Amino acid sequence: MLGLKVDRLGLDLDRALGEWGEALEAARGGLLARKGLPGSLLGWMDLPEDTETLRAVRRYQESLDFVEDLVHIGIGGSSLGAMALEEALGEGRVRVHYVDHVEPTPLRLLLDRLDPRRTLVHVVSKSGTTLETLSAFALFLDWLKKSLPDWKRHVVVTTDPTRGPLRRFAEEEGLASFPIPEEVGGRYSALSPVGLLPLAFSGADLEALLAGARMANRLAGRPFGENLPLKTALIQHLAYLEGRTITVFMPYSARMRHVPAWFVQLHDESLGKVDRKGQRVGTTALPALGPQDQHAQVQLFREGPKDKLIVLVLPLWDEPLAIPQGPGLPGFLAGRTFLDVLQAQAESTEEALAEAGQRAYTLTLDRVDAYHLGWLLQHLMWQTAFLGELWGVNAFDQPGVELGKRLTLERLEKGGRFP
Amino acid sequence: MLGLKVDRLGLDLDRALGEWGEALEAARGGLLARKGLPGSLLGWMDLPEDTETLRAVRRYQESLDFVEDLVHIGIGGSSLGAMALEEALGEGRVRVHYVDHVEPTPLRLLLDRLDPRRTLVHVVSKSGTTLETLSAFALFLDWLKKSLPDWKRHVVVTTDPTRGPLRRFAEEEGLASFPIPEEVGGRYSALSPVGLLPLAFSGADLEALLAGARMANRLAGRPFGENLPLKTALIQHLAYLEGRTITVFMPYSARMRHVPAWFVQLHDESLGKVDRKGQRVGTTALPALGPQDQHAQVQLFREGPKDKLIVLVLPLWDEPLAIPQGPGLPGFLAGRTFLDVLQAQAESTEEALAEAGQRAYTLTLDRVDAYHLGWLLQHLMWQTAFLGELWGVNAFDQPGVELGKRLTLERLEKGGRFP
Repeated sequence: MLGLKVDRLGLDLDRALGEWGEALEAARGGLLARKGLPGSLLGWMDLPEDTETLRAVRRYQESLDFVEDLVHIGIGGSSLGAMALEEALGEGRVRVHYVDHVEPTPLRLLLDRLDPRRTLVHVVSKSGTTLETLSAFALFLDWLKKSLPDWKRHVVVTTDPTRGPLRRFAEEEGLASFPIPEEVGGRYSALSPVGLLPLAFSGADLEALLAGARMANRLAGRPFGENLPLKTALIQHLAYLEGRTITVFMPYSARMRHVPAWFVQLHDESLGKVDRKGQRVGTTALPALGPQDQHAQVQLFREGPKDKLIVLVLPLWDEPLAIPQGPGLPGFLAGRTFLDVLQAQAESTEEALAEAGQRAYTLTLDRVDAYHLGWLLQHLMWQTAFLGELWGVNAFDQPGVELGKRLTLERLEKGGRFP
Repeated sequence: MLGLKVDRLGLDLDRALGEWGEALEAARGGLLARKGLPGSLLGWMDLPEDTETLRAVRRYQESLDFVEDLVHIGIGGSSLGAMALEEALGEGRVRVHYVDHVEPTPLRLLLDRLDPRRTLVHVVSKSGTTLETLSAFALFLDWLKKSLPDWKRHVVVTTDPTRGPLRRFAEEEGLASFPIPEEVGGRYSALSPVGLLPLAFSGADLEALLAGARMANRLAGRPFGENLPLKTALIQHLAYLEGRTITVFMPYSARMRHVPAWFVQLHDESLGKVDRKGQRVGTTALPALGPQDQHAQVQLFREGPKDKLIVLVLPLWDEPLAIPQGPGLPGFLAGRTFLDVLQAQAESTEEALAEAGQRAYTLTLDRVDAYHLGWLLQHLMWQTAFLGELWGVNAFDQPGVELGKRLTLERLEKGGRFP
């Protein structure tokens, strides 16, 4: 189960739930009222129910026996969820290489290392027009075509179900392909084939992943007292009203080390916006990791500006692994486990941060597995959607990235060199 | 060379250098006056000159012929610099595994994958008392001892030159060891054996790395107009005075993807402090990456609160790699290179951010190599040291992390279970 520990938050959450009841009900009502409307981009709510797509991905994976390396070409929402989940859940059956960039040397080094006969290229772009993705795909496609007569077996396309150049290409060439449903935006697409396909190849439990996400869906419909995403959205909202401009996301789990980057995109790109009154709103998500950042960012969290809400994420169980006797270790550690240390650290950090006047709470996971990560990611999507309603922004568009895209294309078209 | 591009910063830097001349001179003077005093922790200034240690590290690496996997056990300053540099510069001669955590399952999975006969364990802790590091080291030591009669050849210790349990252990057992000079703190230690050792095994050009860092040292002594670290420190300071509480560090380079985490520790742990007047000071460093974060954080940077200073880092040269024709690619890309795209993106992002009212400037590197990364890291250490003087804090201690450490030990000693 996904739990919420607020004993050091310093806010009376039950009382706040009462005071904010009307606003929260309006937020949930407003969100759900748009469900099913074209362009609402609420399709992420349905992804956990779509076991048919899951089976299609699994059948495709089982039909290919040559794959030792999977090149996953995608950027932003087309890679961050896959990276986060595969790092935590993959069993290493294939090596997954993420091409989320256009830097020449690492592209060439990766090509040098791969054997095309053992490689599958997965290209991912909702619109099918993402410049970085199409450029890198052109490179890998060229490489496959030059090496393999049956190159088509080595390419799989995940894109819009009907539109865009990648969909057209997949159809014309008769390539394997999967859809990103029309009403699912990039940063809400981790549980679509965008993430399911690399996870299937690396050996994760996809059924458990979606079952966990369905639990998050179920809780989002419950009354306030049992409604986890409404509760955490309210805490985020209250901290925002206090002028806390930074929300830290800090899992105590090395396996979850790429989850913060996924959360940063979800939160920032959904909520950092001009609201309906023309005001700039949003808080800045800051990625962190425990215990690593106790030796990096916690100094600032303790003594720097009191502008932070800090969310710790802590597993309650992991396999028992005892700490052996070793040089310099205090005697009382004998017989304790690594998990004991991890949990004592999270608990102590929460205490030290609260003592310093920052707000902090902990999300607990029974364990780091597919079920709980599915639940956590879907929970955070609900939290973000609720916050969008509370802050009066559309949590599903990204108008602020258009100018940069346009300027890039104009620059390249004019053929100018840097600077 | 490391260059500074401020044409869209919106600040008159030359004028500001004049206005702030006295304060900057005092900052530099105050810093350099402490050089050589015991406890000043300014030994990082001397590391680039220490070619003797470099040769010792190289001789040690050349004396071992069994190493295919290097387990680097260290946390915070004992791993972030090594990770950043090895990802960018390593040639993959050995696989480096970073153990910067205490999570049971990934620890066990790593042990399962390694062959002790081919593995070298590098344990790194300045004090020799870091709980996470000692615990993980105990585990790997136990594994080596159970597997290999000559386990001592498979362990190397990097710690204080004379003190602490790890130094004592290395001496008692006659293990290979390297010093972290007494006057070098963890987050300033990347160019000591902490980073040099894994870099030597992975095949980086250590001589060039230190030569680049010496260039940064040289510039730090120059008059204001040519003094790159004083200039960037001043920009950071002016943005702070404007109430910009967040400083974004955003390299446009996949190879540099771990450099932001290193910078975050350097900046936050050095500067997020209670100053001499009892005020909480500091800005929060936010890691980012281009072009990836154009699809993640840039929406917030454009439309969210105007509380940011954004530092782009851009390579000016990389190997020429042409973009082939490909599905969906605009025709005008034919004949352009991947570097053209990367540079057009960085330039356009800087323009779009400036247009949105955020402050932004670009650090340019001639290329991503050992010389320029050595220069960049040492430059950022000088910038941080100057900022510490301007903000009235000791940039070389970390008093804010002590409470968490004490609480962790107390909790473990009492033997309590979570929560």
